[in-house]
Amino acid sequence: MSEHHTTPPADAAAPAPGSDAVSPREGLGVVHLFCKPGPSYDPESVVAAVKAAEAAGTQVVTVAVLGHKCDLAVMAIHRDLRELRTLQTALQRAGLLVVDSYVSLTEVSEYAAGVAREFLEPRLYPTIPPQGDYRAWCFYPMSKKREAHANWFRLPFEQRKDLMSEHGRSGRTFAGRIAQYVTGSAGLDDYEWGVTLFGVHPDDLKDVVYTMRFDEASALYGEFGPFYTGVVTPVEDVVHQI
Amino acid sequence: MSEHHTTPPADAAAPAPGSDAVSPREGLGVVHLFCKPGPSYDPESVVAAVKAAEAAGTQVVTVAVLGHKCDLAVMAIHRDLRELRTLQTALQRAGLLVVDSYVSLTEVSEYAAGVAREFLEPRLYPTIPPQGDYRAWCFYPMSKKREAHANWFRLPFEQRKDLMSEHGRSGRTFAGRIAQYVTGSAGLDDYEWGVTLFGVHPDDLKDVVYTMRFDEASALYGEFGPFYTGVVTPVEDVVHQI
Amino acid sequence: MSEHHTTPPADAAAPAPGSDAVSPREGLGVVHLFCKPGPSYDPESVVAAVKAAEAAGTQVVTVAVLGHKCDLAVMAIHRDLRELRTLQTALQRAGLLVVDSYVSLTEVSEYAAGVAREFLEPRLYPTIPPQGDYRAWCFYPMSKKREAHANWFRLPFEQRKDLMSEHGRSGRTFAGRIAQYVTGSAGLDDYEWGVTLFGVHPDDLKDVVYTMRFDEASALYGEFGPFYTGVVTPVEDVVHQI
Amino acid sequence: MSEHHTTPPADAAAPAPGSDAVSPREGLGVVHLFCKPGPSYDPESVVAAVKAAEAAGTQVVTVAVLGHKCDLAVMAIHRDLRELRTLQTALQRAGLLVVDSYVSLTEVSEYAAGVAREFLEPRLYPTIPPQGDYRAWCFYPMSKKREAHANWFRLPFEQRKDLMSEHGRSGRTFAGRIAQYVTGSAGLDDYEWGVTLFGVHPDDLKDVVYTMRFDEASALYGEFGPFYTGVVTPVEDVVHQI
Amino acid sequence: MSEHHTTPPADAAAPAPGSDAVSPREGLGVVHLFCKPGPSYDPESVVAAVKAAEAAGTQVVTVAVLGHKCDLAVMAIHRDLRELRTLQTALQRAGLLVVDSYVSLTEVSEYAAGVAREFLEPRLYPTIPPQGDYRAWCFYPMSKKREAHANWFRLPFEQRKDLMSEHGRSGRTFAGRIAQYVTGSAGLDDYEWGVTLFGVHPDDLKDVVYTMRFDEASALYGEFGPFYTGVVTPVEDVVHQI
Repeated sequence: MSEHHTTPPADAAAPAPGSDAVSPREGLGVVHLFCKPGPSYDPESVVAAVKAAEAAGTQVVTVAVLGHKCDLAVMAIHRDLRELRTLQTALQRAGLLVVDSYVSLTEVSEYAAGVAREFLEPRLYPTIPPQGDYRAWCFYPMSKKREAHANWFRLPFEQRKDLMSEHGRSGRTFAGRIAQYVTGSAGLDDYEWGVTLFGVHPDDLKDVVYTMRFDEASALYGEFGPFYTGVVTPVEDVVHQI
Repeated sequence: MSEHHTTPPADAAAPAPGSDAVSPREGLGVVHLFCKPGPSYDPESVVAAVKAAEAAGTQVVTVAVLGHKCDLAVMAIHRDLRELRTLQTALQRAGLLVVDSYVSLTEVSEYAAGVAREFLEPRLYPTIPPQGDYRAWCFYPMSKKREAHANWFRLPFEQRKDLMSEHGRSGRTFAGRIAQYVTGSAGLDDYEWGVTLFGVHPDDLKDVVYTMRFDEASALYGEFGPFYTGVVTPVEDVVHQI
Repeated sequence: MSEHHTTPPADAAAPAPGSDAVSPREGLGVVHLFCKPGPSYDPESVVAAVKAAEAAGTQVVTVAVLGHKCDLAVMAIHRDLRELRTLQTALQRAGLLVVDSYVSLTEVSEYAAGVAREFLEPRLYPTIPPQGDYRAWCFYPMSKKREAHANWFRLPFEQRKDLMSEHGRSGRTFAGRIAQYVTGSAGLDDYEWGVTLFGVHPDDLKDVVYTMRFDEASALYGEFGPFYTGVVTPVEDVVHQI
Repeated sequence: MSEHHTTPPADAAAPAPGSDAVSPREGLGVVHLFCKPGPSYDPESVVAAVKAAEAAGTQVVTVAVLGHKCDLAVMAIHRDLRELRTLQTALQRAGLLVVDSYVSLTEVSEYAAGVAREFLEPRLYPTIPPQGDYRAWCFYPMSKKREAHANWFRLPFEQRKDLMSEHGRSGRTFAGRIAQYVTGSAGLDDYEWGVTLFGVHPDDLKDVVYTMRFDEASALYGEFGPFYTGVVTPVEDVVHQI
Repeated sequence: MSEHHTTPPADAAAPAPGSDAVSPREGLGVVHLFCKPGPSYDPESVVAAVKAAEAAGTQVVTVAVLGHKCDLAVMAIHRDLRELRTLQTALQRAGLLVVDSYVSLTEVSEYAAGVAREFLEPRLYPTIPPQGDYRAWCFYPMSKKREAHANWFRLPFEQRKDLMSEHGRSGRTFAGRIAQYVTGSAGLDDYEWGVTLFGVHPDDLKDVVYTMRFDEASALYGEFGPFYTGVVTPVEDVVHQI
């Protein structure tokens, strides 16, 4: 699993200091919008909304999702939360109903202390979609358990760090098959992290999640929310496929 | 319970290498779409959607479902997830509301290592519906527990293999009464597996699930999602029965 | 609690061998349909749907339900699941929205082995409504727990049988006040059993459930779903009362 | 907390023996209807529905509720469940959508054995609203836990009685600030009891619930459903305030 | 984290003694209304509703919320619950659908006994929004666990007080980055407290919640409901941004 991406920070999207932007001190805002076409759905307005957001510096990936949860997933990244809300409003005005969502921020894990800045930058300022033929896509939110037999937040830092290192090694065996983005949502949404996976093949998604579920960090401590699965598809195409 | 089917792989549906298909490295994509007729429901367009999917190499089974969860279940299998999404869109455009669903992939269980390939092929490349008078149908998703007293993902491989062998023997006593398809959904949908049962009689479905619930693999470790029950019915008929 | 009813099997509704019926090997299919009137609700068509089902051999009880969960409950029994689906479709076409439901089969409990056939027949082939002034009605689904401290499916058969005997004796003290129908739904719906109670007075329903909750089988092992409460009312009347 | 009220039984509402009423052997039926105005909402018809119910002997309290759960709560008491259903239907025909509800019966707790009948009558035949300036109102349903560490239904009767006595003493320190009605719903609705509190001030509601949550009966054994909060308001006024 | 605010009590909004107000003995009523525009949404009427409420002494903060849960959050504080209901009705009549909400009261924690009144007043009579550039906003409700291994309500007062002191010290390290309002809802809404955070940057919200989750009071005892995140925005602007 490739956790790092090599694209430079999307500085073009950074607001000037002192501007009205509502942005994290470090990193970028992320929204996943899970949408269904409503009665006033207008495909061309959806395309226009995405193009306008991109022109404002927002990175956008669109996904044709399988199943009842939604038809179209829109993943968007911008430093200023107000730009993300602007995109959401434009999509709603284009007749999309946002039926589920996830709000998070890019972040560097606390267990990465000591890692050279150059390796952390791609986590704080990622580029989506990842380079390569990653068209199978899934998203799910997750938290760490706080139960009697498994309370992640009562473990010592070193133990948590070791468990996350094991988990990371497990994931890296999927390098070239999976590109992973983990964004933080404590205080922002119902789980503590959002996980977005881009895979070369759909069974890459299944294999990495199944394999990593045996890691102690997941087997004992992981709590998972709903899973969304689909095919990364250019916005011009996907609006006519739903 | 018959877990294997003897039909050869549905290679006709396999995209040529290098095509645009979004397909698993091995096996096929599966969707279960649970539908209700909406205000613009058009029975003939539903039939046409299914026929078009079949012409594109998709295997489709349609079921008249009892109760409020849905009226029509559509189970579809194709190597390319995009074909499954195309079928979903056609059904929606025919006025069906997809109110629940399940996304999975055919797979060979990790406990089948060492089994001759010829026995595994029917699991990876199954044919639906099974041959025989299997008209009673149910579907449910399931996961394995990760709790203090019962954490499947912390058991040694050999123990899990033994439990699944016992479970398999239990199921095989229903051979001729039940045909079973277990497809994998870790990373793809909210549970880890989807189970589709075709029975000769409705109480075959009840008996096999009740009997197997006493197996240690289910009694201790099984978590079950919603159950759908219905009657396998040709699409031309079922569209007029809902 | 009267668990047995003395009416003979509803053989008139049995399909001829070799017919197209989708029926249990033994016993009958049961659906509970919990309905609200939709915008196109037509009372007379609801009456006609019930009458047509009865003419086809379906037993039907209609209930005016209190509260938001639904307005009208329809409990129907027929050997052929297709007849039950036909009734459901006719009710929907009469403008009823089926907002909840339960799918089950009549059955003889495994703990009744050795009981004379004549006592089991009324459980497999019950008549509804029960004879007598049983107009207070409730329904709820239930399962047995599979938890660390209380795993019903890990108990030896003899222990389960003893617990169910105690539970049965507890219920029989309500004979003449309550008529009970327990139908099986493992593999068919989200719980393992559906319980339908007909009471002479509404507090008979409350008293029997409260009393039996102290039985070990319920106190330790019972899991209960939603409860529906209402008044058994002839279909010609109830359609105008909602 | 005042658990008893001094109004005599509402005998005027009692059906004559042998009538068609569907009534408890002892006590009265209770429904809480949580409503929102629908597109055909007609305030005057709501007033008329309440007045007609009162003329038929139904006691009715109307509440302007804060928040999204509903706008108008209607609490109604009558011996005959059919009268309560008649009120519900009239409210629905007046354009109210019943979006949540609770069905219960007045009762005398089993722990009150030995208490003089004159003290129990007000519990079986209460008057609502209570006398005094009790305009702050809340409702919540509750059950007793059946878990490994806290199984109320496995405790000896004497221990349960002691815990309920402690709980009662705790509540009585709120006499004059809170009037409480606890009605039973085992077998009738999803929890075992419904609790309706009338307070002089909104923080009386908060203080009594917070204080009593430390009682062992609640701290260890209580399970609580959704809470509704509002202002008791005459029906003629509340219909124009929502 | 700044828990206290220095604005004097909003006495202007206090009803005269003997008036019809339904107000707490001490402190103020609070509602959070989470809204989506409905088909009859009229932005100017929303502005007028907020202005009218402010003219009646209600403090109001409006927030552009990210994601599907709602588009517009309205947080309002007034001593009289009837004024809060008046605002809710005006917003609904302006075409907003209130899809979620939270009802609570300002309060002084029981652990603050002995603290000088001047420090408690700002908790009972807070001013919103806080002074400063706090435009990132989140809300979530929370309760304390009552489980076998972690039952907050069975801890001695001194232990609870110590845990809350540690928790408070942890929060105060965020002073200048976060302004916090904790309001009480036992007996009033589904959780026991509502937490509203105003942050300078969105990652301030994430950092404070993530950091404090390791405090024993949260790690062992905290239960959290849904999280809402958005940007504090003047009502005149936000009505055109959704």
